[in-house]
Amino acid sequence: MKNPLSANFKMGFLGAGQLARMSALQAFRYGIQVSVFSDRQEHEPVQFMTPFSQTGSFDSVKDMTAFAETCDVLTLENEFISSVVLEEVQEKSSTPIYPSPKSFALIENKLIEKQTFEEAGIPVTPYELIQNENDLTAFGDKYGWPFMLKSSKGGYDGYGNETIRNNDEAVMAFENLGGNSDWDILAEAFVDFTKELAVQVARNETGHVVYPCCETVQKNHICVGVQSPAQVDDSIRKKAQELAVKAAEAIDGKGIYAFEFFLKEDDELLLNESAPRPHNSGHYTIEGCITSQFENHVRAVLGLPLGSAKLRSPAVAMINLLGTNDRKSQVDNASKALKTADGHLHIYGKVDSRTGRKMGHFTMLGDDVTEIYEKAQRLTKEIRI
Amino acid sequence: MKNPLSANFKMGFLGAGQLARMSALQAFRYGIQVSVFSDRQEHEPVQFMTPFSQTGSFDSVKDMTAFAETCDVLTLENEFISSVVLEEVQEKSSTPIYPSPKSFALIENKLIEKQTFEEAGIPVTPYELIQNENDLTAFGDKYGWPFMLKSSKGGYDGYGNETIRNNDEAVMAFENLGGNSDWDILAEAFVDFTKELAVQVARNETGHVVYPCCETVQKNHICVGVQSPAQVDDSIRKKAQELAVKAAEAIDGKGIYAFEFFLKEDDELLLNESAPRPHNSGHYTIEGCITSQFENHVRAVLGLPLGSAKLRSPAVAMINLLGTNDRKSQVDNASKALKTADGHLHIYGKVDSRTGRKMGHFTMLGDDVTEIYEKAQRLTKEIRI
Repeated sequence: MKNPLSANFKMGFLGAGQLARMSALQAFRYGIQVSVFSDRQEHEPVQFMTPFSQTGSFDSVKDMTAFAETCDVLTLENEFISSVVLEEVQEKSSTPIYPSPKSFALIENKLIEKQTFEEAGIPVTPYELIQNENDLTAFGDKYGWPFMLKSSKGGYDGYGNETIRNNDEAVMAFENLGGNSDWDILAEAFVDFTKELAVQVARNETGHVVYPCCETVQKNHICVGVQSPAQVDDSIRKKAQELAVKAAEAIDGKGIYAFEFFLKEDDELLLNESAPRPHNSGHYTIEGCITSQFENHVRAVLGLPLGSAKLRSPAVAMINLLGTNDRKSQVDNASKALKTADGHLHIYGKVDSRTGRKMGHFTMLGDDVTEIYEKAQRLTKEIRI
Repeated sequence: MKNPLSANFKMGFLGAGQLARMSALQAFRYGIQVSVFSDRQEHEPVQFMTPFSQTGSFDSVKDMTAFAETCDVLTLENEFISSVVLEEVQEKSSTPIYPSPKSFALIENKLIEKQTFEEAGIPVTPYELIQNENDLTAFGDKYGWPFMLKSSKGGYDGYGNETIRNNDEAVMAFENLGGNSDWDILAEAFVDFTKELAVQVARNETGHVVYPCCETVQKNHICVGVQSPAQVDDSIRKKAQELAVKAAEAIDGKGIYAFEFFLKEDDELLLNESAPRPHNSGHYTIEGCITSQFENHVRAVLGLPLGSAKLRSPAVAMINLLGTNDRKSQVDNASKALKTADGHLHIYGKVDSRTGRKMGHFTMLGDDVTEIYEKAQRLTKEIRI
């Protein structure tokens, strides 16, 4: 790969949504050009931010190879492209992809992911591969009802997951998730957790940096906000950071990763999900940390030294701004949020609002995390978007 | 003007260099689309950052009106377009321009600028309009030799300025600067200053915010670095901030402004230059202040409430990264700068390096401004670009 800090270096993004958008802003900061491949014709946030844009199918080696040939390096913004396809694109175009297809292969399938992490000594939620109705009943009887049924591919913000309360629901969900077809179905025991924690890790050949352990606030399986640092014992935060670094090593990661943990009543941590990309749980790092997850993502992918992940203030809170209307996007009543010192408004530039869609976020820095989280909630609750 | 935080709102920049680039990054943060007009065909930093780009002449009302009609609001990145042209573009396109052509008219001509500020009670460098050889001699005799001769239009980083040591030089410089042609020539007394200070002010209909008084470090009339806050008495910093706010009011400014002052031995402050746009002296605010000059520029132009201009740390230092080579741009030896905690590297994405050309900058946050300025110098001195 040529020097990324040289004229006309192009970083290509597979995907053009808000995660690619915020990463692109950091690439621009280094004078790097951004190229974007999307399966949608137009209106994607990053398509408004570059003259270098191509569309095609995330299943098509041909489409993505043609795109890759115009770029010096590629990265992912989602988990929807198969590692087999990525491997072929990389080989045919000779354009490196980071995270590497090999590394991505270890987490794209939830079954392999769990096995990989278990082998590395990282505790995960109890799970089993489900192949038929008997397996379903057996799992419920062994680990208790209700439990979760998950497709091994394609989960995102609760999609592709179903809660199973009884045998009938189990059979129906197994069908819904495409049981006995292309991908594996996984049963996961319901974990009685007290908090959901998250840690981002950036890693490449120059080393790694680990972000503070933060806490995600969930509502109906959607992350509505983040508090950093997590309000738990320092020993738990340290343990989560250690496990996250171990996990990034287990998959030989190059890029930024987010690892989400369940914290149990007895203080045990279970790795729940991992994402090989910038993650909603790390949006607060844009202003909240010395180097944001997006900047370190760009640095990691480009092979540059990584920057400090330290917090800029004792506490940081982030509130997701979810669509309140179904309409052309339009932000109203944001004055209070804009006026507040050390409140930082981000709008993603999506053309259409939909109720519940992630349209932006608001970050606040301060001294006490509970206080600023509540303040951020107050300041944003009248925003219509 | 429609709600700037709504779908497909387009902010147009007249000029596509590094100042428009860093402003565009902030517009993107609000999901705003960026459109750019340049007098160069391609390779300008912002042209790599948007699919919406037009080229034409900065003298052509027709070219810029066609561009303006595709935008919801326009702003300037330089002082090279005449206010008369801007006024016509605004009228013909019905697209508002901020800073307004009327306000810009008060500072585009250095003579009117000085008169405007003097009338507002702001001390300026002693000056006189020069119309012939006799005026030159008379000025030298009255204020002493050497003195400065300046074109009333087009000055930038020392271009358009000449130092006059004697009568012969005076006559030659008068000719060089186009004396007795379209624009006025101004003589300015040499001020024996101890420091050069700068203050940015953002202002619009919602109010104003004033940035800390910083100190610019000059070498051969080029700004090589900035230290904030300026290492002078608090009373001087406050006075500079007051004068800067008064100056922004005197021209009824809407946007971000930079005001540069000479500090004399006797602690008197003289307003030296003003810029109706983001300014090199304020690049440190990207990480150094809660809201950067670029973000407040975008907010000011869009009529949004302004953000806090407070420093994020006791001291901030900024070093300009000037081209060290004549070649396709390429940054070498930047690892030390990238590795340093709270050091922030910015590269402008220019395709060609030229010796002395502004190619990027490096900002450091810390506790002691002299210490971090020296550290930033050390960390960047091996960078080749």
